Amino acid sequence: MDKKDEALLERFGEHPTPFYYYDGDALHAHVSSLLSRLHPSVRVHYALKANGNVALAGLLRSLGCGVEIASAGEMFVAMEAGYTPEDVLYAGPGKTVAELSEAVASGIGCIHVESVRELRLLEDIAARAGLFVRAAVRVNPDNDLSGSTIKMGGVPRPFGVDEGQLDHFFTVLEDCPHVYFQGIQVYTGTQMLKADQILASFANTLQLAERIQDQYGVAMHTVNLGGGFGVPYFTHEQPLDMGQVIDGLNAMAEQTRSRLPGVTLIIESGRYLVAQAGMYVCRALYTKESKGEKFVVADGGMNHYASAAFRGRRIRDNYPVRIMRGQGEGQEVAIQMGQGKDMPVQEAAAVELRLGKAADRIGELQPKATVDLETVSIVGPLCTPEDCLVKKAQLPPIQEGDYIVIPNAGAYGLSYSPVHFLGHATPAELLDFRGEVHVIREHGDRTDLLHHQRMIPLLEDIF
Amino acid sequence: MDKKDEALLERFGEHPTPFYYYDGDALHAHVSSLLSRLHPSVRVHYALKANGNVALAGLLRSLGCGVEIASAGEMFVAMEAGYTPEDVLYAGPGKTVAELSEAVASGIGCIHVESVRELRLLEDIAARAGLFVRAAVRVNPDNDLSGSTIKMGGVPRPFGVDEGQLDHFFTVLEDCPHVYFQGIQVYTGTQMLKADQILASFANTLQLAERIQDQYGVAMHTVNLGGGFGVPYFTHEQPLDMGQVIDGLNAMAEQTRSRLPGVTLIIESGRYLVAQAGMYVCRALYTKESKGEKFVVADGGMNHYASAAFRGRRIRDNYPVRIMRGQGEGQEVAIQMGQGKDMPVQEAAAVELRLGKAADRIGELQPKATVDLETVSIVGPLCTPEDCLVKKAQLPPIQEGDYIVIPNAGAYGLSYSPVHFLGHATPAELLDFRGEVHVIREHGDRTDLLHHQRMIPLLEDIF
Repeated sequence: MDKKDEALLERFGEHPTPFYYYDGDALHAHVSSLLSRLHPSVRVHYALKANGNVALAGLLRSLGCGVEIASAGEMFVAMEAGYTPEDVLYAGPGKTVAELSEAVASGIGCIHVESVRELRLLEDIAARAGLFVRAAVRVNPDNDLSGSTIKMGGVPRPFGVDEGQLDHFFTVLEDCPHVYFQGIQVYTGTQMLKADQILASFANTLQLAERIQDQYGVAMHTVNLGGGFGVPYFTHEQPLDMGQVIDGLNAMAEQTRSRLPGVTLIIESGRYLVAQAGMYVCRALYTKESKGEKFVVADGGMNHYASAAFRGRRIRDNYPVRIMRGQGEGQEVAIQMGQGKDMPVQEAAAVELRLGKAADRIGELQPKATVDLETVSIVGPLCTPEDCLVKKAQLPPIQEGDYIVIPNAGAYGLSYSPVHFLGHATPAELLDFRGEVHVIREHGDRTDLLHHQRMIPLLEDIF
Repeated sequence: MDKKDEALLERFGEHPTPFYYYDGDALHAHVSSLLSRLHPSVRVHYALKANGNVALAGLLRSLGCGVEIASAGEMFVAMEAGYTPEDVLYAGPGKTVAELSEAVASGIGCIHVESVRELRLLEDIAARAGLFVRAAVRVNPDNDLSGSTIKMGGVPRPFGVDEGQLDHFFTVLEDCPHVYFQGIQVYTGTQMLKADQILASFANTLQLAERIQDQYGVAMHTVNLGGGFGVPYFTHEQPLDMGQVIDGLNAMAEQTRSRLPGVTLIIESGRYLVAQAGMYVCRALYTKESKGEKFVVADGGMNHYASAAFRGRRIRDNYPVRIMRGQGEGQEVAIQMGQGKDMPVQEAAAVELRLGKAADRIGELQPKATVDLETVSIVGPLCTPEDCLVKKAQLPPIQEGDYIVIPNAGAYGLSYSPVHFLGHATPAELLDFRGEVHVIREHGDRTDLLHHQRMIPLLEDIF
C-alpha cells in the first residue's frame, strides 16, 4: 500500500489528539538511502536523546544504525529496542560511578571519556571488575567551527578534553591497562546546514586523529566525527546538501584507508535522522478574539512540544504549521503553511512539499483552498502566555476541531518537553509503517502524575 | 525538635542526590502566618501548577487553603491530596468537553469560564447532566497593570473575556439556567514584587465587580482577585512587601462588606506560597578546566530544574547558589552565594539569611569560610550547552562531592522541567516536617522512560 494515494487525515483516523505522528516509511527511506550511500567504513549511530521512543529506536537499529546514549536510562531503552551493548556509544560529561560500572559490566561498545578524571575512574572501575573497557577520548579541538548554531567545541566547554590537554591524557592512559583505547570523538556543533562547514570539521578531526596516532603512538580503531547535521525548521533556512556531505565523507573514508589503516569512521545523528519524519498534531478547541486579535486555543502546546513554542521573533520565531480540516464535516481540506521569518506564504508551502509523501498529497490539495488568510495566534491549553505555538501568523480561518499540524517534529519533541506541567495527559505517538498505524506510545493518564509520589500519612493526625 | 539547632546537611542525610528539599515547617509558618493575618472574608487558593506534589498540596489544604487547578489531571491530584470538589477552582483557556463534564459531575467549587463559547458549552453539559454548575467569568480588563513581569491582561490575550465583551457574555448567561453565576476572576500578571501595583489591580477588579453587579444585575458571590505575588530570585530584586498587600487587601475586604455584601474575596497563589520553602540539591561529579575556564559538572541540571538554567545575562541570569561540603570528609562547611546581577557576593549572602531557619544556620557558619573565590560555571550532566545552572559565577573552590544548592526552588521546579530528557532518573522530593524528613516522591527509575511505550512486534519479521 502506498501512502501517496491516501490523505494524511485518513491516517490520523480516530486517534484522539494530541499525538506525535511518525511516517515510518519516510523514515525508512530516508535512513536507508543515507546508509546505502556511505562508504563501507563509515558507521552511523543514532543519538537516542533526539527521540527516546523504543519503537523508533528499534526501527533505526533494524536498518543498520548503532546507537549513542548519554545515561544508564538511555542504555536501558537501547537494550529494549534490541541493540546489543556492542552497538552502543556512551557519551556525556556527567557519568556517575554507578553508570560507568554498569556500562563496563555490559561490555559496551565504547565510552566517550570526557576528562582525565573520568579516565582514571574508568580504569579503576574496570580493574576492580577484572574487565577491559573500550573507550575513546572526546576532544575539544582548538579550531572553532564557526558555522554551527550551538557551539560545542573550540571555545571553553564542559565537554571533552581540550586539545591542549592531550599530552596529559595520553600520559595517564599509559597507566590504564584496563582501558582499551578506541580513538577520538569530536563534536563541534549542532543544527548545521552548510555542508562545507561540516566537512571542514570532519577533515580537522581526521588530521587531529593522525596527529594523535603519530605523536602518542596509540593505535586508532575509530574516529568519531560527530554530526550536527541540521534540518530546516524555518522557511528562510536552506536544507543541508547531504549529497555533498556524503561525497566528501566518502572521499575522506577512502583516504583514511591509507592514512589511518583499519579505522572505522563514525558519524552520530539524532535530529537529521528522525526530525522530518515526525509531526506534532493537536486540534483547535476554541477560537476567540481579544482586543481585535484572533486566538485559537489548541488541546496541546508547549507541554508536549516545548521546542516549538514561540519565544519572540529573534529567539524562536513561529515554526511553520499546517491547518487541516476533516472531510467528515463536509469540508474541503484546507492547508496552509504559517509564515516563517521574512518569507511569504507561497514559498513556505513550496518548502513543505519536500517533506515526504503525505505532505506531497497535502500539497496537491492546496489549490482547492481559496480562502482568505487572516492573522491569528495559536496557543496551547496552559495558563501561561509562554504556551504559544504560533504568534500572529497568516493562516486560513481556523474552526474548532481543525487539526493543527507542526511538521519536522520527530526530534527534540516529546523528550524535551515538560510533559507534566499543568497535569495534561502525555500525548500518544503513532508510527505509520507499511500500511499500519501503530500506537507506539499510548496516551498518558492522570495516575502518571502521582507516579513515585507519596502522601504523608500523618497530616490529618497533626492538625 | 528545632531545625535551628541542626545543620541542613544533616537533614539531607544519606538521601542520594539530586533531590528537591522542602522545609515543611518554614512552609507551615509562612502560610499560616499569611492566612491568619487575612480578613475572614478572604480565601486563599493554592495554584497547583506551581508544584504538583500531592503531599505539599495536602499540607496546604490542612492549613486552610483551597486549590486552583487547570486540568482533569490536576483535579485528580487535588482529590488525592484530600481536597473536596467544593474546594476547587478550575481555570484554563483550553478545557475540553470531557474535562468540563467531569468537573460538572463532581460538584466542583467554581469553573472559571474563559469565553462565551465555553459558557455555552458548560450550560449544555450541565443541562444534559441535569445538574447545576457554579461558574465565574475570567475577565481580561481594559486596564493594564504594567508592573508585572508576564502580562496576562490589559493586552490582547487568549485568557478570559475582554471587558468590552461582557455585554455579550451576560446576555448569553441569561440563557444558561444551569450555570450558577459566582462572580468574576481577574489575573493580570505574575511574579509581581510591588505591593502598590498588586493593590491597584485588586482595587480595579473590585470596581469592575461593582460595575458588573450594577450594570447586569447579577448577584456576586465571589470576586477572585488573582495573585501574582512574586518572590525575589535574584539578589537585585527587593522582596514583595506582603504586609502592605495584606493591609490593603483587608481594608478592601472591609469596604466590600457594604459595597458587595456577602462576597468572598479569593486570592490565588502558587509561587508565593511554596517557592521559598524549596531547594534543588545536586552534587558535583567532576571538576575540570577548558581553555582557562573552570567547570563543575553536577549530577542534575536543566532536566530537573529548567527554570534555573542560565540563558544569557539578559534573559535569565544566574540564580543564587550555595555550595556546601559535608563534614564527614573532615571539611568545614563552605557556603557562598553565587552572584546575581550587579550585586556583590556579600549582599547576596545577606539576602540569603532571610530564607528560613536552615538557611540561618548555614549563615552562621559562613564566617568560618575564609577561602578565596574563583570564577566557575556549573553545568548539569546533559550533552547540551543549554544545561548550565551557573555561568561564570564567583564561588569558593568546588570539590567533587560538594552539594550544589539552589534556593527558592519550591515553585515551577520539577513540574516545569523536561524530566526525561537524556534519560536520567527523576529526582526525589523530601519534605522536612516536624522533625522528620519524609520522602514525598521517590527517585524515578529507568523503567519510567518506557511507560506507555510499545515496541512494534513485527520489526524483526520484516527485515
